[in-house]
Amino acid sequence: MAEDAKYRRAGRLLIVPGFRASGIYAGIKKPGKGKDLALILSDVPAVVAGVFTTNKVKAAPVVLDMERVKKGAHARGVVVNSGNANVSRGKTGYRDALRMASSIEKALKLKTGQMLVASTGVIGVPFSIEKIEAAAHPLIAGLSPGGLAEAARAIMTTDAFPKTASMRVNVNGALVTVSGIAKGAGMICPDMATMLAFIVTDADIRRPALSMALKTAVSGSFNSITVDNDTSTNDTVLVFANGLSNCNEIRSGTPGYGAFLKALSSVSMELARLIVKDGEGATRFIEIEVKGARTGSDAKKAARTIAESMLVKTAFFGGDPNWGRIMAALGRAGVKLNQEKVDITLNNVVVAERGIDTGRERQAAKALKSKEVKARIDLHLGKGGARVWTTDLTYGYVKINSAYRT
Amino acid sequence: MAEDAKYRRAGRLLIVPGFRASGIYAGIKKPGKGKDLALILSDVPAVVAGVFTTNKVKAAPVVLDMERVKKGAHARGVVVNSGNANVSRGKTGYRDALRMASSIEKALKLKTGQMLVASTGVIGVPFSIEKIEAAAHPLIAGLSPGGLAEAARAIMTTDAFPKTASMRVNVNGALVTVSGIAKGAGMICPDMATMLAFIVTDADIRRPALSMALKTAVSGSFNSITVDNDTSTNDTVLVFANGLSNCNEIRSGTPGYGAFLKALSSVSMELARLIVKDGEGATRFIEIEVKGARTGSDAKKAARTIAESMLVKTAFFGGDPNWGRIMAALGRAGVKLNQEKVDITLNNVVVAERGIDTGRERQAAKALKSKEVKARIDLHLGKGGARVWTTDLTYGYVKINSAYRT
Repeated sequence: MAEDAKYRRAGRLLIVPGFRASGIYAGIKKPGKGKDLALILSDVPAVVAGVFTTNKVKAAPVVLDMERVKKGAHARGVVVNSGNANVSRGKTGYRDALRMASSIEKALKLKTGQMLVASTGVIGVPFSIEKIEAAAHPLIAGLSPGGLAEAARAIMTTDAFPKTASMRVNVNGALVTVSGIAKGAGMICPDMATMLAFIVTDADIRRPALSMALKTAVSGSFNSITVDNDTSTNDTVLVFANGLSNCNEIRSGTPGYGAFLKALSSVSMELARLIVKDGEGATRFIEIEVKGARTGSDAKKAARTIAESMLVKTAFFGGDPNWGRIMAALGRAGVKLNQEKVDITLNNVVVAERGIDTGRERQAAKALKSKEVKARIDLHLGKGGARVWTTDLTYGYVKINSAYRT
Repeated sequence: MAEDAKYRRAGRLLIVPGFRASGIYAGIKKPGKGKDLALILSDVPAVVAGVFTTNKVKAAPVVLDMERVKKGAHARGVVVNSGNANVSRGKTGYRDALRMASSIEKALKLKTGQMLVASTGVIGVPFSIEKIEAAAHPLIAGLSPGGLAEAARAIMTTDAFPKTASMRVNVNGALVTVSGIAKGAGMICPDMATMLAFIVTDADIRRPALSMALKTAVSGSFNSITVDNDTSTNDTVLVFANGLSNCNEIRSGTPGYGAFLKALSSVSMELARLIVKDGEGATRFIEIEVKGARTGSDAKKAARTIAESMLVKTAFFGGDPNWGRIMAALGRAGVKLNQEKVDITLNNVVVAERGIDTGRERQAAKALKSKEVKARIDLHLGKGGARVWTTDLTYGYVKINSAYRT
């Protein structure tokens, strides 16, 4: 059950048996802006689970995927475009999402409903579904076992680098591979910080167990990051499991499930960290860890409120160990709190003890010169803990997001 | 009951019979940074009502004021310092707040409990209560009927200008004056965007009616503004009514109450608008109006979520009519929503109709060149409406708030 350390290196993309992928330029983005259409395909029908945006305004592809995943039928893969988010287009948007799936289904003679779709990019502008349909054959022709790296490039919008992660673990005596790609919070052109992640595995697992594992993995990874506080209309995480590893079926509650969950969580966490590192205009990677909260949910709420505070984020940009802003964010987080019990540590320097300044501001300022900041807050009220990753708020963020779209 | 138009001009500070005020330099701020100690005093015991921060981390003066206002006894006024927030200092902080009140009570031979206190400024650093005690006599010596303007200066931290507003109305046949001062969201040196407002009036009104009027006035003014999303530990609004106008007692539900409420609301709204206009680094004054929400509370939630969105605020800084960001904020606001019914208007240009782009981006971009932006969002679901005022998110904001405190 031990993880296979030599395969663990982040960014290395392991081939997953039975999956092929490709990425091409289909003409949705302006020329010179890179690839814009990706396909991930399982050679055999795969179990699929998904987690989608909680935003009430959902993009058409999200609506379609939710319907298809809910039905519980096996899927063959996902087709993804960048350059256009296909959102806020009324009935036309949904019809185009259907056409996008069906362009691959028809070309591969699959049953209707076996392909999922995702989109990211500008919103509200015309969407060239014809260009995607015309690209179906070249996209399929480009499929290869190592093609996930090209798919990772094709789903980028203003991402500075493609985001990939892999892990291989021993599950019930067989090697199981988990590989994933993601795109993050880049959005000069598009309108929202859409987060997309697609994970493939040869694990043999049924839908309820896969769904449960994905929810757990997402909670500690993609749902624990925040660049700004906006939730995109397009956020999608999909995992496909094609069962080709010949491990025995992974059942929840068994050691095999634990090993698989560990791999899925590691890959998710690595992708999430890469998304934060590529956060718009970010100069620092910030981890907010809250412990000693009354409950886990209190801990997460507190960590998130701190991570989302514009005052906290600008202070970190300036390298200012301004713990008063952390305390103020805690105070409005809506969690049980006794100000006189709170300890705050910034990069291992205790700046506040029992809610009072320790006089170590100079050491703390020195420790904050690092590009990685770890703020640890102990509420001393219970056993609840949570970690959230975020970035600082910088001139770069304002520049990128105030740039007019044209 | 008609308001007296000639006195209505914003920024003009009318003298309120029976109130005197002063503002001096007591040595709490660094020399050259301006006055730092203010006193507002009623010649006779006044009815007092207050609204305080909802942050669970409350500054010591807020804790003391809440206790004293709750008791319902009459008050004589408030002593306010800038330069130090007196927060997160444990029992010492509370003791210093008590000493601050008592320095004035003793010098004027008032009963203990008749003075309220407020503080704004840096947190966690030593607080020179001795300097405030030493300044009690010069502060009292400086009291004058027109001194509210000096008090307005003495409560400033990084505010660019003092904030004052006045209104005089006819209540039950007598003229009643309402004058107020406020400080806003400036905070290079301090740690949080503390909002303080002090309003004085010669209205004859009892505490329950005064409290009710203040709550209504605050809801449509100070509680309808947001610069960043942080709630300060020190936010305080106090109103003192000394009854010297000889109007008959103002009872809730009467026309006199309506006239008084109108004056109190106008003064509060003007002070709130001035706070937003002085928002850190702001280049635009933005009004978000949501109508057609299912309930008033839904409308306020939606307006606030839009006003707090970093993506919306950076788009307005860039003059980008990026209504997709408004739609995405609506979607995560937690309110009843039908995306296909939403109309969005930016400075009178309809940019989205029934959730779909109208193609008027160029006109909208032109309309957004104005320094005042009015975004109107109609959800077409009910009769709930709300307005929230905010600023854009700019390089200036990042600069001010990332500047190291020393």
